Amino acid sequence: MAQTVTPPRGMRDFLPAEKARREHALSVIRGVYATHGFDEIETPVMEDSSRLHAGLGGDNEKLAFAVMKRGLTTDDLAAAAASGDALSLADLGLRYDLTVPLARFYATHRAALPPVFRAIQIAPVWRAERPQKGRYRQFVQCDIDIIGEAGPLAELELLTATVGALDALGLEGCRIRLNDRRILAGILGSWGVPEELRERALITIDKLDKIGPDGVAAELATLGVEKADVADELRALAAADWHLADGVVPPPAWLDVDAYRELMALRDAVPGTPVDFDPTLVRGMGYYTGTIFEIAHPDHGYSLGGGGRYDHMIGRFLGHEVPACGFSIGFERIVDLLAVRDEGRPRSVVLVHDADLEPSALLALKHELVASGMRVRFERRVKNLRGLLDRVTADGFDAWAPVNAETTDASSLAFRDLGE
Amino acid sequence: MAQTVTPPRGMRDFLPAEKARREHALSVIRGVYATHGFDEIETPVMEDSSRLHAGLGGDNEKLAFAVMKRGLTTDDLAAAAASGDALSLADLGLRYDLTVPLARFYATHRAALPPVFRAIQIAPVWRAERPQKGRYRQFVQCDIDIIGEAGPLAELELLTATVGALDALGLEGCRIRLNDRRILAGILGSWGVPEELRERALITIDKLDKIGPDGVAAELATLGVEKADVADELRALAAADWHLADGVVPPPAWLDVDAYRELMALRDAVPGTPVDFDPTLVRGMGYYTGTIFEIAHPDHGYSLGGGGRYDHMIGRFLGHEVPACGFSIGFERIVDLLAVRDEGRPRSVVLVHDADLEPSALLALKHELVASGMRVRFERRVKNLRGLLDRVTADGFDAWAPVNAETTDASSLAFRDLGE
Repeated sequence: MAQTVTPPRGMRDFLPAEKARREHALSVIRGVYATHGFDEIETPVMEDSSRLHAGLGGDNEKLAFAVMKRGLTTDDLAAAAASGDALSLADLGLRYDLTVPLARFYATHRAALPPVFRAIQIAPVWRAERPQKGRYRQFVQCDIDIIGEAGPLAELELLTATVGALDALGLEGCRIRLNDRRILAGILGSWGVPEELRERALITIDKLDKIGPDGVAAELATLGVEKADVADELRALAAADWHLADGVVPPPAWLDVDAYRELMALRDAVPGTPVDFDPTLVRGMGYYTGTIFEIAHPDHGYSLGGGGRYDHMIGRFLGHEVPACGFSIGFERIVDLLAVRDEGRPRSVVLVHDADLEPSALLALKHELVASGMRVRFERRVKNLRGLLDRVTADGFDAWAPVNAETTDASSLAFRDLGE
Repeated sequence: MAQTVTPPRGMRDFLPAEKARREHALSVIRGVYATHGFDEIETPVMEDSSRLHAGLGGDNEKLAFAVMKRGLTTDDLAAAAASGDALSLADLGLRYDLTVPLARFYATHRAALPPVFRAIQIAPVWRAERPQKGRYRQFVQCDIDIIGEAGPLAELELLTATVGALDALGLEGCRIRLNDRRILAGILGSWGVPEELRERALITIDKLDKIGPDGVAAELATLGVEKADVADELRALAAADWHLADGVVPPPAWLDVDAYRELMALRDAVPGTPVDFDPTLVRGMGYYTGTIFEIAHPDHGYSLGGGGRYDHMIGRFLGHEVPACGFSIGFERIVDLLAVRDEGRPRSVVLVHDADLEPSALLALKHELVASGMRVRFERRVKNLRGLLDRVTADGFDAWAPVNAETTDASSLAFRDLGE
């Protein structure tokens, strides 16, 4: 009897239609990023376990899948049992993001790379999260990073390339939200949040969309932030019309004016996409040091991607600092929003053949059609022809023709359109 | 100080030039296979450990990377130490081929697939082999398989699609070697090789290219094959002019004439590529049941791919047999043989800019060029301009232009060709 057979928990198979959508989207993104001067690289899916657990991955380190050493002896197992340290049995792990591998790649190959290196990485990552709707244990990340450029040209190139990719995918109407970690630091400073609590306070502010200003204020109070009117201040920050550089309002005392001026210059320079300054934007990762940005779409309650400047990280395996800035598209979310588009697809036809025909005669027919640029699939004739035609229509074929002993070459085929 | 940092042992990073070659080759292969009516699918890189060790993977099962269970307790570790069974700590593993995942995928999704399913799988696999030249622990396999077609149309479609892909890659001059496991069984039977030794005898004959007829005969003798003139018979098999169907020689007693006639029909039907019958061709895997084939190239001493019919395998997770036939291109070997080709690539230009220019003015220039279809990279001007231009030439750029305060729009750029 047939058993129930499934892919591993939290991981997905992709059937032909979905795989084609994904590959189409990836090839559009690849093409736009290449045009914008970025170069694609690839690293192995595994990295040394010690590197994955070097503190660069934040909470994701706990979610890494560990790969066991080969040839473990009973002594090795007994030693792990004695120490209680399962991870001592692993020498490798599956990457949980593309940033740690990029830092390792840059340390390995910096001598062969240009002084300003613009990297594309499009590849799966793995996290042993509790599976839930829309959250998978294997998913694709699409990252671009600029390494070695300290100035705002990096942010500009990243934002422009990203907007270009989303446009090319047909995702119109996106907006960019901009902020700078230095501005957030100023706000927290004005609330009297002590240095050691700032990272946790940022994690709380990051929940503003979900729990609202009052929820954030309450959670900050439990952390020990004693300022009374945090909720009002958050409401005011979100509502303010931010045009300080134009003199609309005088700068508040907490505002890092240099950081703000840089953001305004970015806002005015990104072509064709509205950019909003949002002083409450946090972005989750602890490693950001300056500008942070996020893509929002009015039809969707979640961000379609984001990134920022992280100047202290890429150099970690090198031993000296290297400026860096990156942007990651939320591929798994975006691919679900795309309309299926047919441009550039070859005409797809189905040859419905009698069962007793010579295979070599069938093959010769197919060869002639393929050589003329068509996509061709054989189907053996069945009693339920209607069912067969419905199925191949659903598979995206455009036309079909019967093939029998009289069909001697492609010109004798009588094609009929499908799906009408 | 900088430390030496490398990817994990036996695994490779791909820098931009190599990554571009690989992606180009993969996209050519994908396109040809799609035209021939195959559909690409994807499965997770991990499968349940029990499935990877179900006996379908042959020797590769021993080479699987094992992924540790999450949340192992000291008791779990102590139990593994007591039993000496390290694999009891793993619930998942990285796939070592694409055939076991295909059998699992087919069992999961057969209700949603056409009766004859033509699958493309292009994806990495992992084997913990001892690293050596040209052998990697992560490498890409390109497989096509036809499931549900028992007749020779499957072999014909596979061979034609494969030849089409190699042609499109510019690998001309390939030949196909054909054999059938039933013919090999006849030869072994005529030598008196007992049933239980046949699999090992085939593994020995598979070494014919490396150790020659005398080496094979010697090794067969150690297995207990007592026939004296095996080396002479192997020489005769390799030298014979095989045209039995045309009556050139009477069929030898050991020849499975039905299998032979099918091979001759295949040989005559594959368009445009020479096909040789080779009764000594084995192909390594134990699961083949009928036709086997291999792509050879006169300039290279190794096969560029191969496959065959394996009717007893795909149905293993279903509980009933399903006919199947597959072909795998040796992607890692082929990609090294390809000439770099430029067709279809956008014109690539480098803008060499003074350090003090406004980022937004630079970005506007780039935006204009990208919109006109060019690939654009910025480089900051350095003293050693010659060195910079040599580097970007090596990176594949076609032209460069200096950018300074006077360059106000793209029309004021003076492009000079690179690499002349």
